[in-house]
Amino acid sequence: MFGRPRKLALLAEGRFSPSDAKTAVGVLRYRPEEVAAVIDSTRAGRTAQECAGVGGTVPVVADVAAAAAAGADSLLVGVAPQGGDLPPAWRAPVLEALERGWDVLSGLHAFLADDPELAAAALRTGARIHDARRPPARRPVAAGRAAGVGSTVVLTVGSDCNVGKMTASVEIERELARRGERAAFVATGQTGMFVADHGVTVDAVPSDFVAGFTEELVLAAARDADYVIVEGQGALHNPAYSGVALGILHGACPSALVLCHQAGRTHLRVSAAPGQFPIPPLAMLVEAHEEAARWLRPARVVAVALNTLGLDDRAARAACEGAALETGLPATDPVRFGAGPLAAALVAWRRDHAPAS
Amino acid sequence: MFGRPRKLALLAEGRFSPSDAKTAVGVLRYRPEEVAAVIDSTRAGRTAQECAGVGGTVPVVADVAAAAAAGADSLLVGVAPQGGDLPPAWRAPVLEALERGWDVLSGLHAFLADDPELAAAALRTGARIHDARRPPARRPVAAGRAAGVGSTVVLTVGSDCNVGKMTASVEIERELARRGERAAFVATGQTGMFVADHGVTVDAVPSDFVAGFTEELVLAAARDADYVIVEGQGALHNPAYSGVALGILHGACPSALVLCHQAGRTHLRVSAAPGQFPIPPLAMLVEAHEEAARWLRPARVVAVALNTLGLDDRAARAACEGAALETGLPATDPVRFGAGPLAAALVAWRRDHAPAS
Repeated sequence: MFGRPRKLALLAEGRFSPSDAKTAVGVLRYRPEEVAAVIDSTRAGRTAQECAGVGGTVPVVADVAAAAAAGADSLLVGVAPQGGDLPPAWRAPVLEALERGWDVLSGLHAFLADDPELAAAALRTGARIHDARRPPARRPVAAGRAAGVGSTVVLTVGSDCNVGKMTASVEIERELARRGERAAFVATGQTGMFVADHGVTVDAVPSDFVAGFTEELVLAAARDADYVIVEGQGALHNPAYSGVALGILHGACPSALVLCHQAGRTHLRVSAAPGQFPIPPLAMLVEAHEEAARWLRPARVVAVALNTLGLDDRAARAACEGAALETGLPATDPVRFGAGPLAAALVAWRRDHAPAS
Repeated sequence: MFGRPRKLALLAEGRFSPSDAKTAVGVLRYRPEEVAAVIDSTRAGRTAQECAGVGGTVPVVADVAAAAAAGADSLLVGVAPQGGDLPPAWRAPVLEALERGWDVLSGLHAFLADDPELAAAALRTGARIHDARRPPARRPVAAGRAAGVGSTVVLTVGSDCNVGKMTASVEIERELARRGERAAFVATGQTGMFVADHGVTVDAVPSDFVAGFTEELVLAAARDADYVIVEGQGALHNPAYSGVALGILHGACPSALVLCHQAGRTHLRVSAAPGQFPIPPLAMLVEAHEEAARWLRPARVVAVALNTLGLDDRAARAACEGAALETGLPATDPVRFGAGPLAAALVAWRRDHAPAS
């Protein structure tokens, strides 16, 4: 990851739960071989699996020294807090990692390499700071070019932030590959970038270029794939992040959408206004996304990916059946039940709607 | 402007026409007292009025030396090219201005203060470089707060970029003031910032914070105004900039929209794909914007502002009548015919829909 194989300590102090530490959970799920330990002193002594339902026997430890003893050689900041600042209590462990000469990987909006104290420590020890969210220097302007690729472009869209768009995207890509299809995952967020080891965190680029970067990524991925699975960001109904969601939609020019939702979530997670913004019914979300796509290139929602975290299997199954009934679309939790129905829906879609070229 | 009254040379080399040099034209229209000269060697010897239909007797001159002779003491970069780079041929005049100790004001995406050669020149002479597009350091996250203000929030939205949203916004604000209403203009782009001497160029902020900055600006303006007129950016149907448009819409939470359009423009101005993206009929644009607003807070399009540049008065009048007929809304060109009908529509709207507070 970021230049070489690593043994990561995932910093998730006080927050190592499935809902709070989505970056750590994503890396544990899809790059377990690069994780040596998770740092969270409030959960030290347990395994990652016990705390977050993922990561098997990876140990949760109290501090950087214990992570070093577990074999870690790099530190990855494992949360993505709203606003994107480094939590004050995390400065000490980041500094300690740099003092040990560990590279530090971060997806925060606040660039660690621009912090004088952290930069000085890195300079002393030769450690490198990788700020995944730092925008590339170029300024690509989108022009609907992604509508012209021969691949089937698929975008995961969401009822809200943090409902499982990245996870659904990776599960779909892997399931398509298992079925012998040429599929590529396009990462548009920091966790996706850590998982894929490429991509651009488009929520951090100047807003004029969100669509342009997305378009670039799709055009590149389409060269070697029949299915390009683009990770969506934000949500059209979220007061803070709707613009990011629309920029990706119009940059990617998908023909197929997969609607992602967390079962049981009734309101948008707007931390300054909890409970104020109800999530519309799934059928209305389908309509809104198809309407917004139509402004540039028509697209259809072809399946629903449900995140059933916290439900038991029976309730999860019922939630998927309810979503399928409400939308008339295949619906499943790709993590719990596998992405088979989602991949099958996309294969059927491509068979019936393959691009002319 | 930017700290003190100025005598500006507006750099518009080779491009000083109403459609190409929108920053220069905006400053000439609304801050003529701060303009000493326009630099465009291909049009030197004429007046601003002759070249751009605005600016009266302000002379168009060939170079920085001639602008100095006309009394200039600062240089403002008068274009906003797609992509935002400094045109190569403009480096020499910018450098010459800095060598003379002139401050340089720029709204380009490429920050002039980060250019080593220009920064060194500024350091030598004590000149200051003001990059209006440089994002503020803070990272505000929107939460629909603007929906709660007691003011009537009005957003200008467009059929495309560069159709006259900033101009319509300023004309509306001034017309409301003329009628004794407390109105404020919120600038969200570089030209608007030069005109208003405040604001944030939201197309240059990390995309996660477009709505947040817009919300901040609206909350601040609402403290002293019954009408907050927010300058829109981009367009929901533009493949490159739709995300910026939606971010502003959901950050501002307007209750009233003014739809801006350039009469006769049939296709979106996408420089890499000219003629490929037809502009939908006005009635469809009204529907699309009301739909997108509804995702967060319902809003109505209450009037149409038409830019009739290039038409004669009779054709302009006919275009306005056609737009009114098509949409069932008041329609006028606020520059050519005055913003009276737009202001009247907003006053009537506020009378019937004043916020409860």
